Amino acid sequence: MKPINIGLMGVGTVGGGTATVLKRNAEEISRRAGRPIRVLMAANRDVARAQEVVGPDVVVVDDALQVVNNPDVDIVVELIGGDTIAKDLVLKAIENGKHVVTANKKLLAVHGNEIFAKAQERGVMVAFEAAVAGGIPIIKALREGLSANRIEWIAGIINGTSNFILTEMREKGASFAEVLAEAQRLGYAEADPTFDIEGHDAGHKLTIMAALAFGIPMQFDKCYLEGISKLDGRDIKYAEELGYRVKLLGLTRRTDAGVELRVHPTLIPESQLIANVNGVMNAVLAKGDAVGQTLHYGPGAGALPTASAVVADIVDVTRLLTADPEHRVPHLAFQPDQLQDLRILPIEDVVSSYYLRIGAADRAGVLANITRLLAESGISIEAVIQKGSLSEGNAEVVILTHRVQEQAINQAIAAIEALESVEGKVVRLRMEELSN
Amino acid sequence: MKPINIGLMGVGTVGGGTATVLKRNAEEISRRAGRPIRVLMAANRDVARAQEVVGPDVVVVDDALQVVNNPDVDIVVELIGGDTIAKDLVLKAIENGKHVVTANKKLLAVHGNEIFAKAQERGVMVAFEAAVAGGIPIIKALREGLSANRIEWIAGIINGTSNFILTEMREKGASFAEVLAEAQRLGYAEADPTFDIEGHDAGHKLTIMAALAFGIPMQFDKCYLEGISKLDGRDIKYAEELGYRVKLLGLTRRTDAGVELRVHPTLIPESQLIANVNGVMNAVLAKGDAVGQTLHYGPGAGALPTASAVVADIVDVTRLLTADPEHRVPHLAFQPDQLQDLRILPIEDVVSSYYLRIGAADRAGVLANITRLLAESGISIEAVIQKGSLSEGNAEVVILTHRVQEQAINQAIAAIEALESVEGKVVRLRMEELSN
Repeated sequence: MKPINIGLMGVGTVGGGTATVLKRNAEEISRRAGRPIRVLMAANRDVARAQEVVGPDVVVVDDALQVVNNPDVDIVVELIGGDTIAKDLVLKAIENGKHVVTANKKLLAVHGNEIFAKAQERGVMVAFEAAVAGGIPIIKALREGLSANRIEWIAGIINGTSNFILTEMREKGASFAEVLAEAQRLGYAEADPTFDIEGHDAGHKLTIMAALAFGIPMQFDKCYLEGISKLDGRDIKYAEELGYRVKLLGLTRRTDAGVELRVHPTLIPESQLIANVNGVMNAVLAKGDAVGQTLHYGPGAGALPTASAVVADIVDVTRLLTADPEHRVPHLAFQPDQLQDLRILPIEDVVSSYYLRIGAADRAGVLANITRLLAESGISIEAVIQKGSLSEGNAEVVILTHRVQEQAINQAIAAIEALESVEGKVVRLRMEELSN
Repeated sequence: MKPINIGLMGVGTVGGGTATVLKRNAEEISRRAGRPIRVLMAANRDVARAQEVVGPDVVVVDDALQVVNNPDVDIVVELIGGDTIAKDLVLKAIENGKHVVTANKKLLAVHGNEIFAKAQERGVMVAFEAAVAGGIPIIKALREGLSANRIEWIAGIINGTSNFILTEMREKGASFAEVLAEAQRLGYAEADPTFDIEGHDAGHKLTIMAALAFGIPMQFDKCYLEGISKLDGRDIKYAEELGYRVKLLGLTRRTDAGVELRVHPTLIPESQLIANVNGVMNAVLAKGDAVGQTLHYGPGAGALPTASAVVADIVDVTRLLTADPEHRVPHLAFQPDQLQDLRILPIEDVVSSYYLRIGAADRAGVLANITRLLAESGISIEAVIQKGSLSEGNAEVVILTHRVQEQAINQAIAAIEALESVEGKVVRLRMEELSN
């Protein structure tokens, strides 16, 4: 059977990995796909480097537009990243009637609605398994594997850099700054790590999963983002004493009031499997009304794991290449005319449990006062521990609350901070049991 | 759009769950599938009971052949179980040009080759997500999500009854017999539990996964089965002291000599996520050459979780109903003319690490003699602990070995048992690091 011709845009880490996997597993892949799949053309700024990676049989150019306009290319694979050039190229490829496979989470989370509408109009597929959680086939699981379910929530450890940092902070008792420097040495964190550690990357991935799970448009601009850079090692330690691990969690949940869409450091009970996902690994926990909880775990980044997802998409697209568009799996799991514009909840309206750490100037007084203020706000307490010593000037009270709306806890915290017996700012972390 | 008509054969636990999910999530499901899906006809021995479950809109009959022969039925869902009547009905349905969705692992592991050949011939789909690991979309992951990979091995906790028993034995220090009785009271184990506790059920599921992973025919008859009924609580305790958990593991691995296909109690390092899968939950760990390890976790049984998988298959089949057969995903992941008849390794040829527990009549002598015998067989030792006391007559030596072929360890064990300083039979368990 005629081979499928791939046009590869971007021959960096993932692009190189994709070329490697397609070559190394060519036989295995064609036994599955029913026809050979090969890279016909590749575009990269550094042509010579790319030529070395993809081998002499592939035409390498420096202008990606040539890939998009090449009539012999069946599937365009976009691995450039970002949402400027990549966006133009993807839209142009779609316009040219080409199917697109991309690993570009930012492009989809920010411009996905426009891109999928265009793809729908032109009858082409845009596949994006590699955009979320690297090698874990989570897009396929949410879109197809759990299609019988009313999905209730999804919680994911979806940024490997942050998870590596949090794991090291816990295991070595090191500070955020120390571990970040180590992660940068090891190549797990970029020179400018903002995108990973402040939750942007996780927010992009969460936005995509929320769209698939609930049948809503992409709306990254409404995703609440809070990173790990201000985390104090003490809170990781105290959380552990209370039976919790601190993870940067992306959490999206359907509630009667709207959809929660939020990324922030979160206490999770250590008895949960996902609390034990360590290092650079990723995991996504999905709750469906029929299936209950399923966990999907694996490497969230890296050349070959991400290539695994890119190539799986290529095989999928190859299989459906000649099927008419209405029988393909919809891009966002739901038929395009069946998306709902559910409201995204502002973070103040979200309901969560909380971890509070409060500096005490006078321990006896502080507990009585805090307890009274929380009770007055209707916030009940699950656990209290006292740490440090008053004489050494580091007495602290740590409180775990039951579930309450965020604005109520914020008001209570303001009142607590105004107490004379309290010193400094209250540290507040969100806590999720993920039990149902 | 015209609704898809389901013919349901068997309205027991999973059949009832399937009817419930299709009704409860009808809107959600049709938003995904692009058209309504409804149960048109159901067959069950007890017609009145089934009618109550599926509601008054569904025609209920006691003869499943009527479902298979009903020209208005698009997809036949087989939830009868076993491989006698179910086999005839599935083959008849295929002959009648109907697509089939089944949860029947035994039917596929034993007669899958015949069934898929027939389906291929008639151009119909046979989908079976629910046959392995209940609600976990593992078939889809292996067949499509990891299609870029040369899959190296799969290890699964795929029998909830056994995992429940092992979890309770560890947590409560109870004996196998005690926990089995408890499991029977709770409904987690059948009155005759043989099928679950002796590894048959896990063997069926493993056979199906091996076929998907390696592109080989189903060959359950060559699957090595060893259950948990002879497990002594002591070994679970000693394993834990050494940092391991004992799980009933289904393991299939591609080696140069052939394919390993085996189910048996296995020591797994407690640092592995899969070692922490407890109670009735299931998990499958797959190793691909590109992706590395991915873990897929969730409920392996139960009405609604299994229905989640059945209905996901129904949605898949619905989407591809009018696509021509060559563009559908192949039943066994690989194109039907691309299956390879790799040799299944006899258990004697398998290479593994081992846990040995040896009764000692004379402790000083026993260690020296055992060490000598193992060294003579080229078996190196990873760890030794001594348990019990010679004076109380329960002195024991526990040894963990490095990797060695099973026939070599068996020979060494025979020699050890012949020692005068050794009492009784040597207990031997297999051990897998699952690290690469």
